[in-house]
This record gives sequence, C-alpha cells and structure tokens, in this order.
Amino acid sequence: MLLCDIGNSYFHFFYKGKMWKEGASNLSKINPQITIYYISVNPLFEQRLLDLHPNSQNIENFIKIDTIYKGLGIDRIAACNVVKDGIIIDAGSAITVDVMYGGMHMGGYILPGFDLYEKMFSGIKILDVGINPRVDLFALPQNTRDAISYGCLQSMILPIKNIVRDDFLYFTGGNGKFLAQFFENAIYDNTLVFQGMLKALKDHGIMESK
Amino acid sequence: MLLCDIGNSYFHFFYKGKMWKEGASNLSKINPQITIYYISVNPLFEQRLLDLHPNSQNIENFIKIDTIYKGLGIDRIAACNVVKDGIIIDAGSAITVDVMYGGMHMGGYILPGFDLYEKMFSGIKILDVGINPRVDLFALPQNTRDAISYGCLQSMILPIKNIVRDDFLYFTGGNGKFLAQFFENAIYDNTLVFQGMLKALKDHGIMESK
Repeated sequence: MLLCDIGNSYFHFFYKGKMWKEGASNLSKINPQITIYYISVNPLFEQRLLDLHPNSQNIENFIKIDTIYKGLGIDRIAACNVVKDGIIIDAGSAITVDVMYGGMHMGGYILPGFDLYEKMFSGIKILDVGINPRVDLFALPQNTRDAISYGCLQSMILPIKNIVRDDFLYFTGGNGKFLAQFFENAIYDNTLVFQGMLKALKDHGIMESK
Repeated sequence: MLLCDIGNSYFHFFYKGKMWKEGASNLSKINPQITIYYISVNPLFEQRLLDLHPNSQNIENFIKIDTIYKGLGIDRIAACNVVKDGIIIDAGSAITVDVMYGGMHMGGYILPGFDLYEKMFSGIKILDVGINPRVDLFALPQNTRDAISYGCLQSMILPIKNIVRDDFLYFTGGNGKFLAQFFENAIYDNTLVFQGMLKALKDHGIMESK
C-alpha cells in the first residue's frame, strides 16, 4: 500500500514510513503490484497519476469530519481527521489554518505561503528582492528586503497567534517546521495528512501492509 | 503648479486641490504653461511623463527626512515629511507602513495590498475566488471565499495593530479609507504625499500658485 497526497504543486508520497515528493513532469512509475490510495486537490495532477497508474484508488469518500465548511480541501479534512482538539496549520504554497474542538471542525482560513509571496512581488521590480526568513521581528526594518520579509512573516504569524488561546498547534507541510518555531505549544509533524488517510483506511477495514 | 506622484501602477495628479489618477497608456497632455513637479518610484513611467512633458521637474532631492532606512521610496518619504509623530500607512497595490517619532523615521515595512492578493491566488484555480472585503473577522470562515478573504484582511490588519500603542494612524492610498475603519485613532487623508511635496516646495521657496 502506497499513499499519495496530490497538492497544488507536488505529488506527496508515503510508503512504509518513508515520505517524498515528486513534480508532475517526472512522476515515477510505481510497481503495479502496489496499490496506490490517494487524495487530490488538483484534477490535472490526479489525471496524470491515473494515466500512469490506472488502478490507483481515490479514498476521498472514506474520510469524513464533522464540519459545515463548504469546499474544505480533502488534504485539510485528512489532517483534521487525526486531531480532536487543536489548530492544524498546513504550510505549503498556501497556508491553511483549521480549528478542531471536541472532534468538530469549527472553521478555518487560508493565508499565502512563502512561494506565493515571492510570486506576488516578482512583478514589481523594486520589491522583487526575495524574502529573508531570519529577519528580526522585534525591530522595525531599515531596508527594502527586511521590510518585505518582516511584512511577509508577520502576515503569516499574527493571524495564527490571533486565534490561539491555550490550543495545541499542529504544523505540517513544507514550511511547517520553519513556522512552528514562532509558537508555544507547537509541534511539527509532516505525516499528519497521511495519518488521516491511514486512519480512514483502517476505519474502512483496509489495513496497512506489514 | 501641478504635482504628480508616479507610483507602481498609476500617475497620481494634484492641481489646485483636485486629485485624479491616470494610467500609463492614456496619459493626458497638460498645458505646457503649467510646471509639473513630480516624484517617482517607477523609472519607466517617469520616462513616459518626461516624453510628454520634458520640462517636468523631479523634486526628490527637495524632500528629506531623518532616517537610516536604505531604499525608502520617495512617496513614503513625502508622506512622512508631514507627520511628526504617528504611523503612516499608504495602502496601494502594496501597503507601506512607516513609523515617525519626534520627527524621526523609526523604520517601516511592506505588506501586499488587495491587488497583489488577487494576483497571488489567480494562478491557483480552486483559490481564485476573489476577496470579500466585508467578511466577518469575528467568526471562523466556513467557505473558501471567506477563508481567503479573512486571511487576506487579517494579514493586512494584524501586522499594523501589532505595532500600534497610543499612536495616531494616517491612512492614505486607494485602499486607505477601507483599511482605516479597522483602527481607532485613524484618519484617512489621500493628500498626504502631495502635502509632503508642497511642504518641500515651500521650504525651498517655490510657492504654490494662487
């Protein structure tokens, strides 16, 4: 059994405890003996996977959480599926923030991630200076690169701090480890989405291979 | 005397108390008897103005503030030039935030404005849903458009709230009026940059025409 989480930018794989990501242009051919269970927020990439591995199974319908949110991405649903109480932050090209309380999804929101910030300023020559992730957040910036970096980091950190009371924070995704350092009560676990997929498979009697 | 503030996206004009903006593609021909005094953060647009009005005068060197910030845009310098104590927020395609204290510039930073947020998400089909500026900021969003809108607004508002103590806030720029409503002690004054230019001209003995 191999798990695949198809995101906006990459295919994320999980097999026997190992994780890796691949781009759409150089997707690996997997041994056809191994069943691929996947979720996807990207119809084009999903078709790419199915072209190469026609027997792959979309397990979206296996994963349910209690929510009134319309259009919640299946990757967010999977991650929320393993957290009863806490805030789940998936920091990829976009950053999704979801709040779970007593096993119920209370709502969530979406912030731009680093990639989107860099893309955003790339069209404006004088602001296209890159982002310094180590910028000092306790002093006002004194040059353009620090000014952009400070704005970018505070725009990610403060909307999350604003909703934290005594909650535990679960960070995942490519920039999750980096962002987690700005918070108390935070852990980084890059397997959260896959844990949610495994839980759903187990709940439906499809056990992980030994 | 006609003033022109050349920004990243528009030419902003000020003449006898009236303000208007023009795009680069349909720049008006002004009566050559009227001297144009201008500042610019956009070399391409500046050349466009000079092609049409060769006698226009760049007054950048007339406007000085006390700062150690490297690369502070001349529009920001002009706006800071009329505020002794307070926070100056120019909300255009990018949002610049500058802190003045006792007539000294203490530093500043740059956030994306609405236009950049819309551009940023425009490449991601499921997130390209537009921004609802009236989204409720006191409840967690329950759909994609509100989730994007909430994230966008909080990313603009909270980094500013984070540095406000008992300061007065001066909002200017195209979205300044909208953003000002989220703050106490805030005023919206769309003439701030032009006031700074006028002050500099007066300080250099070039008086406003009656």
